[in-house]
Amino acid sequence: MATFSTLAYFPITIRFSWNRASYDPNKKSLSYIKINGTSAKSTTKLDMASALTSVAYISEQQVRQNIPTTKQFVDHYRQGMIIEGGVGYRQRVVIRSYEVGPDKTVTLESILNLLQETALNHVWMSGLLSDGFGATHGMMKHDLIWVVSRMQVEVDHYPIWGEVLEIDTWVGASGKNGMRRDWLIRSEATGHVFASATSTWVMMNRTTRRLSKMPEEVRAEIAPWFIEKQAITEDVLEKIVKLDNKAKYMNKDLKPKRSDLDMNQHVNNVKYVRWMLETIPDQILEAHQLTSIILEYRRECGSSDIVQSLCQPDEDGILKDGLKQDKETSLVNGFSLAAEILEGNGFLASFGNQKLRYTHLLKIDGESQNDEIVRGRTTWKKKSFSP
Amino acid sequence: MATFSTLAYFPITIRFSWNRASYDPNKKSLSYIKINGTSAKSTTKLDMASALTSVAYISEQQVRQNIPTTKQFVDHYRQGMIIEGGVGYRQRVVIRSYEVGPDKTVTLESILNLLQETALNHVWMSGLLSDGFGATHGMMKHDLIWVVSRMQVEVDHYPIWGEVLEIDTWVGASGKNGMRRDWLIRSEATGHVFASATSTWVMMNRTTRRLSKMPEEVRAEIAPWFIEKQAITEDVLEKIVKLDNKAKYMNKDLKPKRSDLDMNQHVNNVKYVRWMLETIPDQILEAHQLTSIILEYRRECGSSDIVQSLCQPDEDGILKDGLKQDKETSLVNGFSLAAEILEGNGFLASFGNQKLRYTHLLKIDGESQNDEIVRGRTTWKKKSFSP
Repeated sequence: MATFSTLAYFPITIRFSWNRASYDPNKKSLSYIKINGTSAKSTTKLDMASALTSVAYISEQQVRQNIPTTKQFVDHYRQGMIIEGGVGYRQRVVIRSYEVGPDKTVTLESILNLLQETALNHVWMSGLLSDGFGATHGMMKHDLIWVVSRMQVEVDHYPIWGEVLEIDTWVGASGKNGMRRDWLIRSEATGHVFASATSTWVMMNRTTRRLSKMPEEVRAEIAPWFIEKQAITEDVLEKIVKLDNKAKYMNKDLKPKRSDLDMNQHVNNVKYVRWMLETIPDQILEAHQLTSIILEYRRECGSSDIVQSLCQPDEDGILKDGLKQDKETSLVNGFSLAAEILEGNGFLASFGNQKLRYTHLLKIDGESQNDEIVRGRTTWKKKSFSP
Repeated sequence: MATFSTLAYFPITIRFSWNRASYDPNKKSLSYIKINGTSAKSTTKLDMASALTSVAYISEQQVRQNIPTTKQFVDHYRQGMIIEGGVGYRQRVVIRSYEVGPDKTVTLESILNLLQETALNHVWMSGLLSDGFGATHGMMKHDLIWVVSRMQVEVDHYPIWGEVLEIDTWVGASGKNGMRRDWLIRSEATGHVFASATSTWVMMNRTTRRLSKMPEEVRAEIAPWFIEKQAITEDVLEKIVKLDNKAKYMNKDLKPKRSDLDMNQHVNNVKYVRWMLETIPDQILEAHQLTSIILEYRRECGSSDIVQSLCQPDEDGILKDGLKQDKETSLVNGFSLAAEILEGNGFLASFGNQKLRYTHLLKIDGESQNDEIVRGRTTWKKKSFSP
């Protein structure tokens, strides 16, 4: 017991040494400077200097990032480990003070950030991560990047400030050229599933910006990681209609700020969601909690694009989902079932399980064709007292 | 060695058990429902129900947050530990993918978030954290909250995506009624100090919103944690002037969004900084890196306030700081030393160490008195190639 306590008290030193030994091949490469594709003899002084600077820069970055070149099974720094017989990834996270909203529950944006983070750390552990944003070595060679085409997140229960979570993530095949990535977010203490998510990814040529087939070389890298398990069992995918300018809510002239751009120089996914949700009136946001969001991505949004966010409450959604059982009662009582009227109505609210649904569209302002950035659908339930 | 490796491979299970045993007093309280300050006999059914709901809610939250009621020395979940002879706190963090900007270096906003997070985790470890935003049990009893009056962050080097950091934080006395909190951010691998920060905090009555003396009860709680060490040695504090509407840059009609509010229902500090920095033209932000920011807080900003952000380049700053040595040369050559002209000037840029300085003001729109939210000063240096 004494030895055990001592180990528990000095975890950082112990793990530090252990980590160093196991996955720090880059450390050694600092003194070894290789100039890629450059013959030292034929370079001018200036070329030589810039090549050296460039290589030194990459080496320093490699050392500081410490990206492994072979598969790792445990990462103490990120509190991550390989699961699912060697192909899935689990990471433990604590909800931080700035990841929660005024009600102390984690924001949807923080959830999306954590999904991105664990996905990238999964690739990190695989030994396949090149310098790109989740791209493998094979993808780098073919000048390919990942782009997300669909994302769905279901939230049953919002974690609170200080709560400890386990996030599992894994990948699977999606058709011939795509990849599915799923996640499960659980309470570390009880194992209760708080949220689940699924997404579909395809490859795009970084230069031409056209979608690409999956090269055999890349398939060989990632297919061994594919498993069949699905976090969300998809029924037939329901079509999300394209909204037009008759949509009930609209925010115009949205301009990406420098701080909204990610490592790919694109407007971050999280910013999309913020723009979408901000069209919904505050009093609805305050009284409701998002339970589901589906995003269908259509095109990239760059730093100079001006964006419109459209939003339409979905009256059908109310009828079909939450009030399926209560339809007759409501009609008998002569209530309009429009989402806006339901909101705050004591009688109907007492049914407790009615849901609001919204259809969303983000589009580039001023373009008539190919103007859609992302279509979305959100579902909301009335907030209960407990977070 | 064999035992050692085994422990290293299964850290989560081991630490989980260890943690549970040491600081989970709340877990036991789930079945014990106590109604604070309510006589069960005199309550109506409704009162009773709401009291029970309220207590059940608090208990559930306590269990999920697991805030310790006695001092802890190690927190494996947050990778934190008590240092400095029992009064300081150190936490290891890995820079996450969404905490960096387009250049893969951590954003100032993420740094500020991490400072807040480690400060709160320090209080968490102390066993003094009540349910508030860093408030102690004594502060809760006196209905007091912390408000920050001054914050200064110096960044020498920006960590990059995936880099492992150690953040140290500790507190000291500031006058009779205030508290100083300092931080050091270091590379975990090399020990190199990347950033340092200091801040001053005072207490405010939550109801009256007036500043308060530090009650003896609170002093008794926190004074044992005070140490003298300072992360930034302050010279005489330079006054930050109040800008007026003649300021060169101005962003008007800034409205806090729901997602900008923190647990205290106030506009988050990080949002203030974003508003400040967004007044600086993009081409300057792209070519420069912030090396220092000072914030002087004057009043709270609520969710319904409309905010103006003013910004003035500081010509004196250039003369006094970066170009102290080059002043004569520059004047001889007839160059204007205005910050805007220096920017992008090949000749002067070759001096390499010139700095830009800006004075900032966030104010409530439409109020003539007591309209200042925060005054600021930022200092910037030219970006080098390497992050």
